Amino acid sequence: MAEAERKLNNGNSRIDFQTDPSKYRHWKLAVDGEVATLLMDVDEKGTLFEGYELKLNSYDLGVDIELADAIERLRFEHPQVKVILLRSGKPRVFCAGANIRMLAGATHAHKVNFCKFTNETRNGIEDASEVSGLFTICVINGTAAGGGYELALATDHIMLVDDGSSAVSLPELPLLAVLPGTGGLTRVTDKRKVRRDRADVFCTTEEGIKGRRAVDWRLVDEVVPSSRLEEAVAKRAREFTARSSRPAAGKGIALTPLKRERSADAVEYSTLSVEFERASRRATITLRGPEAPPPASAEAMVDAGAQFWPLRLVRELDDAILDIRANEFDTAAIIFKSSGDPAQVLAYDQFLEANKKHWLAREIRAFWKRVLKRVDLTSRSLVALVELGSCFAGTLAELVFASDRSYMLIGQRDGDNKPPASLVLAEVNFGAYPMPNGLSRLASRFLADAGALEKANRPIGEMLEAETAENLGLVTFALDDIDWEDEIRVFLEERASFSSDALTGLEANLRFGGPETMESKIFARLSAWQNWIFQRANAVGEEGALKRYGTGQKPAFDTRRV
Amino acid sequence: MAEAERKLNNGNSRIDFQTDPSKYRHWKLAVDGEVATLLMDVDEKGTLFEGYELKLNSYDLGVDIELADAIERLRFEHPQVKVILLRSGKPRVFCAGANIRMLAGATHAHKVNFCKFTNETRNGIEDASEVSGLFTICVINGTAAGGGYELALATDHIMLVDDGSSAVSLPELPLLAVLPGTGGLTRVTDKRKVRRDRADVFCTTEEGIKGRRAVDWRLVDEVVPSSRLEEAVAKRAREFTARSSRPAAGKGIALTPLKRERSADAVEYSTLSVEFERASRRATITLRGPEAPPPASAEAMVDAGAQFWPLRLVRELDDAILDIRANEFDTAAIIFKSSGDPAQVLAYDQFLEANKKHWLAREIRAFWKRVLKRVDLTSRSLVALVELGSCFAGTLAELVFASDRSYMLIGQRDGDNKPPASLVLAEVNFGAYPMPNGLSRLASRFLADAGALEKANRPIGEMLEAETAENLGLVTFALDDIDWEDEIRVFLEERASFSSDALTGLEANLRFGGPETMESKIFARLSAWQNWIFQRANAVGEEGALKRYGTGQKPAFDTRRV
Repeated sequence: MAEAERKLNNGNSRIDFQTDPSKYRHWKLAVDGEVATLLMDVDEKGTLFEGYELKLNSYDLGVDIELADAIERLRFEHPQVKVILLRSGKPRVFCAGANIRMLAGATHAHKVNFCKFTNETRNGIEDASEVSGLFTICVINGTAAGGGYELALATDHIMLVDDGSSAVSLPELPLLAVLPGTGGLTRVTDKRKVRRDRADVFCTTEEGIKGRRAVDWRLVDEVVPSSRLEEAVAKRAREFTARSSRPAAGKGIALTPLKRERSADAVEYSTLSVEFERASRRATITLRGPEAPPPASAEAMVDAGAQFWPLRLVRELDDAILDIRANEFDTAAIIFKSSGDPAQVLAYDQFLEANKKHWLAREIRAFWKRVLKRVDLTSRSLVALVELGSCFAGTLAELVFASDRSYMLIGQRDGDNKPPASLVLAEVNFGAYPMPNGLSRLASRFLADAGALEKANRPIGEMLEAETAENLGLVTFALDDIDWEDEIRVFLEERASFSSDALTGLEANLRFGGPETMESKIFARLSAWQNWIFQRANAVGEEGALKRYGTGQKPAFDTRRV
Repeated sequence: MAEAERKLNNGNSRIDFQTDPSKYRHWKLAVDGEVATLLMDVDEKGTLFEGYELKLNSYDLGVDIELADAIERLRFEHPQVKVILLRSGKPRVFCAGANIRMLAGATHAHKVNFCKFTNETRNGIEDASEVSGLFTICVINGTAAGGGYELALATDHIMLVDDGSSAVSLPELPLLAVLPGTGGLTRVTDKRKVRRDRADVFCTTEEGIKGRRAVDWRLVDEVVPSSRLEEAVAKRAREFTARSSRPAAGKGIALTPLKRERSADAVEYSTLSVEFERASRRATITLRGPEAPPPASAEAMVDAGAQFWPLRLVRELDDAILDIRANEFDTAAIIFKSSGDPAQVLAYDQFLEANKKHWLAREIRAFWKRVLKRVDLTSRSLVALVELGSCFAGTLAELVFASDRSYMLIGQRDGDNKPPASLVLAEVNFGAYPMPNGLSRLASRFLADAGALEKANRPIGEMLEAETAENLGLVTFALDDIDWEDEIRVFLEERASFSSDALTGLEANLRFGGPETMESKIFARLSAWQNWIFQRANAVGEEGALKRYGTGQKPAFDTRRV
């Protein structure tokens, strides 16, 4: 049943999400005071996998990994930047979207994960605007097709050159029999609020829409003659700069390379370990609490830079999650454990709370928010084990609430003198880290009962032992030492015996009760439909549109509606 | 590429959605004053298709067609009924859910449409409660598994017998590698607000949950010892009866058999015609306005009964839509046309508005609301053509706003003396018929611009000609006679050339901008994931769980997560 994954172009066996500007092949990042220019200039040969070329600024996951990295670096390394100008380095084309040959040859799992990551990157662009006042202006001089226009949709302001040929389009349906699955349909209706029948016309018009009509239909914010483009861009950049809340002259911190050592069955980071038990299809992530108290001041935090424990941990956690998602498809469950002093974890939460107006504290919290959302959206069963000597407090307790199930040990264990398992809540658990549905994980947990949420609020800062945590509804089961090993073994074995696909669907539904946001609509409605279409013969069959694109042969469709 | 559809058990070539209690094989409907008992007692041999038996009160589409009919009849024929007791006629089992052999042998398209219809039926049970005060109490004496429990979830109150064995369960995932796709997951998290980790435990526990824990986890409303069951049921029935707003002693109307004549390429109803152009994959539904003015009084409306034009039309439209959905998979586009006097259509809207507190007017409006939602959820391209002599006014104008595109003819046509095309708005277009997302179709249309919605409100009652309608944003394109034929022909030909699956996904996204409701979450998030899973080998492959269920062989799963 297994489809074969393509070979990586760089000879490695794993997709690596770490990069830095010195390694970029597709983007040029130039910072000039408060304005940065991010130039898309895709290297046709610089593909992630073998077997295709990235013509016309089309992209694959490798291109998007660089984009995500550039956005993060602008947030941390260049706090004075208030506006990003997103532009193309190629003549007559802004971006042709996801590479079709790449999609045609990719496994279903890669396509789905590719779309998920690119969606997260685009949400990250919107997050930079919303949280940090780091605005993006998209300058389209040429064609922005498919994923190219979807990238534009994630920015704050879309400028289209009015030269009789520059156009925006979502040609996925007419050309490829798939959806604009990187948020396009949702942002057209819900962000730009294009009238639904016009959206229908737009999404079925291969050549797209240009000029005045693109503005009238709300597809772009303005059209500008070529002759006045630079002047107009500079004007908009000044306007957005004036609205930004970023520090006028903050000193950035360098996002230094992660400390990461990989062996056959483990990855060792500076603040966490990942251990793979491949026979039983488990990955255990053990997070380690801080070894030292927080620094004395915000300045000392800036001096610590990427070594500051909460930042180091969140970067490493992000990498670990992405690595499992992209490279360990056979992992059924991710198990979160922790070790350390809960009081120290809380001290860092308090430090960040006390300094929450400082740009770096704000960026670190926003980073945690995004990585926790990445956890929510990870298609693996998530399990938290709260054991002796663990430190699930405050921010780290979010991983317990993000999990599909959590188990907590009651009391001590014979011959083990580590402190009893405890869970500690902090202010940060009540709103700092909203899920994609806009609610905190605790509010999502206690949808039925505002009283339970209120009750959970009371013991902030207390070391809650297992039975108390269970009574407050904070963990699924509290177990004593006699039952612990067996119960968890049986649960994990059973979980691994279930259909991986059914679990994906189940978890995608149960994790997100309550309200919906544009973000949750993208990952639920849009992505779920795209995943469906990515399996249909009309798209991916031998005679389907993705396979036949560019061959001169028309696709052959099963004409029946479902 | 085409999968073969199974043979119908009754020898017919089409699935028929019309039935009446004299034909029921699976349900017994007994009315006793204000309380009706709806007894599920499925005839094992009474299957819709050949090749399986409906053991243990399991169901197929045929069983659900009877259930939907029974609910409608209680609303129209028995207005004095305030409470439905939903019970099983079988010992030790309430309902075993959707029949597994049926699912295993059904085409993908049938599975998807089966789930859609059963979802609509369950939403209809909730609508009866919300709109009409017709409450349903579910009495579970035995096991309610899968779709059986999902049926219970749609009711107002779930009573479970506490006998040590009666239980509720959603065993789809552990047993069949599919989801509880008839609203189950969404209602567990969003209606009953079961804590998400408990929902995870529940949905992965094959044997389900019984007794006190079922109440504590919010899965049922009460548990009752067998010995006190009838007494407790009677007590609850009295409580709900007391809360109902239904008329104490209204005279019902008979939902008489539809007038319907089918030929090879057409279906002729009393108020509308359906014409199939199968070579071009079109179905045209032409609705006819009323021939006479509305009756003089509400009593006269009751006397007219099922012949009252708005009721006749909505029942016929419902049947036509369901027939196309279930039997005409190759239809790419449904084209709505109308003919008649817009003023007469408006007169009926005004009549219903004036009598909106009358139980029958209320039921007729609620029926229109449900059928219009059925249109919204129909997986075909929807096109409205507003031509000479048409009567898209008020309620009928909703079909224009439900369409993916609408075209309106400007001016007269040579040699045709019918009145010019006009569109007329009424109060009813501004809230009486919410879409599944909770908004009116006009509010969904003008998401961007409350001003446009306001502007559309002003000309209520005016006959809007094409260019005015276009300027108000009410139709997609106004075309003159010179362009009309060609533009529409090219559009429809192009539409039929696109991938049917990609259109399904596109329309499911573009039709529902803005907010989400539990209902829209069911059809979007849950159904989309279920559709995906219904294609995965783990469920439907030769070694998948649906195929191997009951064979004694364990399913073989592709263990990779996507």
